Amino acid sequence: MKKHRRTVSRIRWALFVGLVAAALVTSVAVEARAARHAQPATDPAVAALRDQALQSDAAWKLLASLTTEVGPRSAGSAGDKRAVEWALAAMKGLGLDDVRSEPVVVPHWVRGENSGEILAPFPQKVLLTALGGSVGTSEEGITAEVVGFPTLEALQAAPDDQVRGRIVYLDRRMERTKDERGYGEGVGIRRDGPATGGKKGALAVLIRSVATGNHRFPHTGTTFYGEAPKVPAAALAVPDADVLAAQLASGKPVRFHLKLTSRVLADEPSANVIGEVRGATHSDEIVLLGAHLDSWDLGTGAIDDGAGCAIVMAAAKLIAAQPRRPARTIRIVLYANEEAGLSGARAYAKEHADELPKHVLALEADLGAGKVWGLRALAAPAGRTFLQEVARDLAPLGIDWLEPAAFGGADLSPLEPAHVPLADLAQDASEYFDYHHTADDTLDKVDPKSLAQVVAAYAVTAWRVADSTVAFGPAPPPPPRR
Amino acid sequence: MKKHRRTVSRIRWALFVGLVAAALVTSVAVEARAARHAQPATDPAVAALRDQALQSDAAWKLLASLTTEVGPRSAGSAGDKRAVEWALAAMKGLGLDDVRSEPVVVPHWVRGENSGEILAPFPQKVLLTALGGSVGTSEEGITAEVVGFPTLEALQAAPDDQVRGRIVYLDRRMERTKDERGYGEGVGIRRDGPATGGKKGALAVLIRSVATGNHRFPHTGTTFYGEAPKVPAAALAVPDADVLAAQLASGKPVRFHLKLTSRVLADEPSANVIGEVRGATHSDEIVLLGAHLDSWDLGTGAIDDGAGCAIVMAAAKLIAAQPRRPARTIRIVLYANEEAGLSGARAYAKEHADELPKHVLALEADLGAGKVWGLRALAAPAGRTFLQEVARDLAPLGIDWLEPAAFGGADLSPLEPAHVPLADLAQDASEYFDYHHTADDTLDKVDPKSLAQVVAAYAVTAWRVADSTVAFGPAPPPPPRR
Repeated sequence: MKKHRRTVSRIRWALFVGLVAAALVTSVAVEARAARHAQPATDPAVAALRDQALQSDAAWKLLASLTTEVGPRSAGSAGDKRAVEWALAAMKGLGLDDVRSEPVVVPHWVRGENSGEILAPFPQKVLLTALGGSVGTSEEGITAEVVGFPTLEALQAAPDDQVRGRIVYLDRRMERTKDERGYGEGVGIRRDGPATGGKKGALAVLIRSVATGNHRFPHTGTTFYGEAPKVPAAALAVPDADVLAAQLASGKPVRFHLKLTSRVLADEPSANVIGEVRGATHSDEIVLLGAHLDSWDLGTGAIDDGAGCAIVMAAAKLIAAQPRRPARTIRIVLYANEEAGLSGARAYAKEHADELPKHVLALEADLGAGKVWGLRALAAPAGRTFLQEVARDLAPLGIDWLEPAAFGGADLSPLEPAHVPLADLAQDASEYFDYHHTADDTLDKVDPKSLAQVVAAYAVTAWRVADSTVAFGPAPPPPPRR
Repeated sequence: MKKHRRTVSRIRWALFVGLVAAALVTSVAVEARAARHAQPATDPAVAALRDQALQSDAAWKLLASLTTEVGPRSAGSAGDKRAVEWALAAMKGLGLDDVRSEPVVVPHWVRGENSGEILAPFPQKVLLTALGGSVGTSEEGITAEVVGFPTLEALQAAPDDQVRGRIVYLDRRMERTKDERGYGEGVGIRRDGPATGGKKGALAVLIRSVATGNHRFPHTGTTFYGEAPKVPAAALAVPDADVLAAQLASGKPVRFHLKLTSRVLADEPSANVIGEVRGATHSDEIVLLGAHLDSWDLGTGAIDDGAGCAIVMAAAKLIAAQPRRPARTIRIVLYANEEAGLSGARAYAKEHADELPKHVLALEADLGAGKVWGLRALAAPAGRTFLQEVARDLAPLGIDWLEPAAFGGADLSPLEPAHVPLADLAQDASEYFDYHHTADDTLDKVDPKSLAQVVAAYAVTAWRVADSTVAFGPAPPPPPRR
């Protein structure tokens, strides 16, 4: 009995202590949050725009429509042309101004049938896909011994006679990072591996997919031959790369059969699709929000870059629906053919060369639908100072000011010679490279709430910059590109 | 200053309170754990076996070898024959007794090429795969309007003229559960959907994959036509099912093109592979640990059922290496062709009919490599009581006694007429149906620590039952099969 009473009193004491501790923790957290928010108040109109964006399903509906009604839309394909029609109709439906397409000629590479098989020491088919732009094999395919290298550097350092007449395999694993660092460091095997192997006399080059995650999808993406002999190039899905690596590790000779019917067809017409929210007082000054309309052929391009298209379109729709227009024009540009060589981006820079000095700031959404966690800029000091203020308006979305400078989406690179100022709304890319450039890039991989947060970040940033008369440029020279 | 001092004293108070709370929580937890473990002590030899199994990588090495050196091994294929050779060599390498194969004739269905495409209202290719046993389409394929139903029951209730001349689509989603319940409730559309559609005059039947998760793999699995007209049958990957469902929801007529070159070839020889740990004193009494050696053709069969094979083989290896043998014989049976009709299981029951009364207890590992969380039995009262004791030996592995009765793996079903007692080591199947019957069923989906825990559960259970002379049977009638 005594023991029972002691237990009860101990439980009471534990409850009391727990409650006191919880109350203290709560009060400390409330104080900390108040301190963090001690900053110049956000304009109520901007706060309202931000909250509307968070509540809006506009981007989700656009993305569901694009992926359901168009689906894959690689440069030059029938889907590419349908995507242009879709974007024109969708922008008009959103009430944007001066909706139009600007013609772009795009290359038309087709994947064809891709197959690979380990013949020895342990026969097994593997899942692989051609790298974008790869030449095909002959009709019979290529059968040869595989020589493996852990990195591009190891292949570069290898004597030619270790490579000549063989199939090269590059086994480097990509690191998972919140930003694009892991990809930037890992993509070399895809970009430069085939050219490096071709120069040394390889018959073909295989790579471990430049990817995070371990689902059984090969990840495609463009390879660049430059002046090197063009050899067939393909990426293995991660589990298949594991099997090939394990068989190579057995020390027995590994023979492989590769067949790709990939080829380049005649160029095709495509288009950049453009719509605007015309500025109230300084309509000749342009705040450019970009994304790319093309996708790879394997998936429905939900994260790359349907999400980007939906984000910038939804941001423009929300701004267009405000009680008044901002001073400057917000221009939405959905670029043709980002994936296979930036055709649309180059065409835009050329077509709008005279107007580039009036491009106040440019941003591109091309990293999926992960939440924005930072804002960074490549701009003159007055522009940077202004964007630091904007970052404070974005703080309730969990967004901080970031250093070093912005490097812009790939489609913005042709604007650099004109010193167009850039900003990046840095998105969480932790899971992006699980799906990037695969058949698994589909609508279900997008979180509607996260997508709405990105729209809010773009809408607030675009509104603030367009509603100011601050000079953001000329931009300093850009940092080295990822 | 006063405020600062107050803050410091508040922080000190918070620290003190926190430490006291932590100490109390810890002491309560320690007491609770001690109470939970108040039970008859486990035999030190059994505890040692359990700990050796947890530390062993034997199962992982077997599974890596099987998936790297054999890979896919569907009934009747070249991989199936290689798997038999692999299993014979591996069992001999583990030091098992009387390693042999027993011939089994198996069907030989081949998947061929499978493709599907929505033609209208919004053209898009979809990823699908034939259901096991499906007939093919004609060379030109089937082109028809799609009629969708949310469930098998809705199709059963539909008037024939709603179905006749159309392609049926069944959209039911499977629920994620820790046990097989979600699968048991969801598999009807795959098992019976094609027969139901065929009877009503459908040209073909498509289903949403019976699957959890949302990766873009179609999930295959056997369908049963029975006496119904045989119509081509295929499963769409979950994201593709979403697209088809969205297009059907648009209200516009949906036209679809399906082509399958699946067909049945001549039967092939295969085998059950058997090895034993001979009992010391009662070697004619059998404790059967089963798994199935065949897999589907799409993946490397790491979780279904390479893991099961590796688990029972590793358990036998660990027991064979103990200082003494248990009383009864432990028999490892790797069954041929579970997936396409239990050929090996039926052959075993027939071949060993005379010996079945001496089968003390049978278990099958066929639910991947998720941790075991429960033990349940279908046995006479003395057997149940004994297995409840065994559950206490398994408690340190996080395993509880479960009700209701065991239902056994599918390969054990032909033992039921002989009233062979059964036990289930119930595994966590929460993620199993993300990968089940897909190309994504590969080695990297298996957690080595979890695999070792399952081996420990099998080793302890087999040892305890084999080292006893308790009569477990005759088993009562089994519960309804899942």
